[in-house]
Amino acid sequence: MTLLIQKFGGTSVGSPERVRAMAEKVRASRRSGAESVVVVSAMGGETDRLAELCRESGGDDPRETDAVLASGEQISAGMMALALQALGVAARSFNGAAAGIETDGAHGRARIARVDSAPLRAALDAGITPVVTGFQGRDREGGIATLGRGGSDTTAVALAAALRADECRIYTDVDGVFTADPRICENARRLDEITFEEMLELSSLGAKVLQIRAVECAGNNRVPLRVLSSLDDNSRGTLITYEEENMEKPVVTGVACNRAEAKITVVGVPDRPGVAHAILAAVAESGVNVDMIVQNVSSDERTDFSFTVSRDDFSRAMACAQKAGAAVGARDCRGDSGLAKVSVVGVGMKSHAGVACEMFRVLSEERINIQMISTSEIKISVAIDEKYLEVAARALHDAFRLGEPDSGGK
Amino acid sequence: MTLLIQKFGGTSVGSPERVRAMAEKVRASRRSGAESVVVVSAMGGETDRLAELCRESGGDDPRETDAVLASGEQISAGMMALALQALGVAARSFNGAAAGIETDGAHGRARIARVDSAPLRAALDAGITPVVTGFQGRDREGGIATLGRGGSDTTAVALAAALRADECRIYTDVDGVFTADPRICENARRLDEITFEEMLELSSLGAKVLQIRAVECAGNNRVPLRVLSSLDDNSRGTLITYEEENMEKPVVTGVACNRAEAKITVVGVPDRPGVAHAILAAVAESGVNVDMIVQNVSSDERTDFSFTVSRDDFSRAMACAQKAGAAVGARDCRGDSGLAKVSVVGVGMKSHAGVACEMFRVLSEERINIQMISTSEIKISVAIDEKYLEVAARALHDAFRLGEPDSGGK
Repeated sequence: MTLLIQKFGGTSVGSPERVRAMAEKVRASRRSGAESVVVVSAMGGETDRLAELCRESGGDDPRETDAVLASGEQISAGMMALALQALGVAARSFNGAAAGIETDGAHGRARIARVDSAPLRAALDAGITPVVTGFQGRDREGGIATLGRGGSDTTAVALAAALRADECRIYTDVDGVFTADPRICENARRLDEITFEEMLELSSLGAKVLQIRAVECAGNNRVPLRVLSSLDDNSRGTLITYEEENMEKPVVTGVACNRAEAKITVVGVPDRPGVAHAILAAVAESGVNVDMIVQNVSSDERTDFSFTVSRDDFSRAMACAQKAGAAVGARDCRGDSGLAKVSVVGVGMKSHAGVACEMFRVLSEERINIQMISTSEIKISVAIDEKYLEVAARALHDAFRLGEPDSGGK
Repeated sequence: MTLLIQKFGGTSVGSPERVRAMAEKVRASRRSGAESVVVVSAMGGETDRLAELCRESGGDDPRETDAVLASGEQISAGMMALALQALGVAARSFNGAAAGIETDGAHGRARIARVDSAPLRAALDAGITPVVTGFQGRDREGGIATLGRGGSDTTAVALAAALRADECRIYTDVDGVFTADPRICENARRLDEITFEEMLELSSLGAKVLQIRAVECAGNNRVPLRVLSSLDDNSRGTLITYEEENMEKPVVTGVACNRAEAKITVVGVPDRPGVAHAILAAVAESGVNVDMIVQNVSSDERTDFSFTVSRDDFSRAMACAQKAGAAVGARDCRGDSGLAKVSVVGVGMKSHAGVACEMFRVLSEERINIQMISTSEIKISVAIDEKYLEVAARALHDAFRLGEPDSGGK
């Protein structure tokens, strides 16, 4: 029998009515001959409410905070089990521990160490649809540990891997992965399929459809992962694939946009080993995530070292960079908090050297100055003045013919 | 070291501010040299909210409903642990299962079967104050079972018994047990002590200070139980005692009032075995709780059989009584839904035959007609027209001199 993991996010279970509608999706899968393990997030806004209650209670102990936060998913799992039963589907809720999900002890950002599939397998064999709390598991001391934001996607993928599910379905409020943000490029198309590597690049680039951690976990375990709409019963969504060989691989699959970036350049850094590390370590220790990193080739024993951060972190990162720059003898430290990042992604780039060239030509024709370039095997990102973000995205989407069903995409 | 159980109800933990205030009470106990195990209810209103979410999700499975309801106490236990930590008190939350509370499988109204005190004892030995979720335990299959309304008081008493605590303190929004309802008798006094038997009668008579189940559990295990105010730091409350011998035992300890009673009389019932059972069984099967029951001595092989019910249940009980009465050949069935019940309670009554006589004299002087009388060893209850409730309560409170510190009460 086909086994599906069906994961519903916070908006999909945001009210009893929505829970009942999602329960009907599960029943429909069952009627079409599939078994399901259901994974649920907390009701939309619930985790924030609980975090605020913890904060106002005056403490910050991660173990106790996790015990409170975990109740959000326990409530929606119970609601979903009740809704399924009301539709005549035998169902039972399982919290993380009961579902055999074991984590490390990093409360608030735990990683799944192991899944004992026996409890869920026994429920399935008994004809019962398990409803599992996302976002949490049992640590080695028997306490509750939460996986951090977006952890429910990871729970679903980990269960799919442990149970060797035929497909892991992530229901969300968009209809899948698109060639670009439809709010920017009106002819953006939904992709029927996307490769794991492309999805990994897109997740990290701000197409907030799937948590990058869940995508990584899916890739490690080759879990067939589909993102689809919880609002549209006919949604086919986008399937993440792992084909090694695909003769028709498109050159570019999508354009990703990140607003609100900031760039910091440490000017005149001595060109010697350890300097980059000294600056980045100082920034990382302050809790700021660094995105693009560029260091120019030096000509006079000094070089410029640039990196981008989220605009929210700009002033904190700037302070760290100034201090660390001064310590290593840099001449100056400059910042620009008005940037955006545009990226083109596609596995076909591996064998098509012309993509970067084409991208720079398009931006040049639009008279958009490129402030920074960063590339990977299947992605090229540029930092540009934020006000040109839409112009750049549309021009690139058109230039790579992503809006046309028979080219690009797949 | 002195060991206290400190139990806080829904209004006492109704907000993060209230939780922090209760945490200070726990710290104060600790500073005075006592160890505590804290028991918490869900935040006021939370259990109702969760029950409504279950109902709207469409199901009524008791196991799943319990899993949802139990999260209310898990949230407040985590909040309390955080608040204690913020005050420098090492604390850890324990859900029912972690605290070793084992129940039967009657979800929604489970009874505590056993408490394994080892986990809490280990925490106390390590200098950690355990914060235990009230109202819940683990059933034999490892699921969560809730104890029904007011179950948190029972949790506290059961833990006090298992840990042989020196005192179990139930913090509530009144300052203890009074000789009468202060809203009716303005000179009602707080009792410093009350015997277990008196408390049991008072609980069942509507003095809603403590759940009767918790009082029974305390009596079975001789747990020193104190009810006190969570709003007043100087509250001494009322201690429930188990002294077998007390030479100064007062005759009457308090006056209890129950409004909204209804009386049903099945008239002309054949005086033969099984008739009372036939009528009461019919009423009980419809889910109505019967309170007072009176049957007159018969003179002509027929008798009148009367009982009281809550006014909410009047029409349902009347319909059952009419049907059952007709089946056993009764002549008629009459009802009166405008009654109230007044009771005087006191262990001293056991050896003072004059109490009933004095009670009837007082009511007679106030020209209050007694419609029904029911007595136990330490209680006399009368049903009267509801409009005379306050007059009767005040007259009895004065006649037994309950407002005077040196008499009555103790």
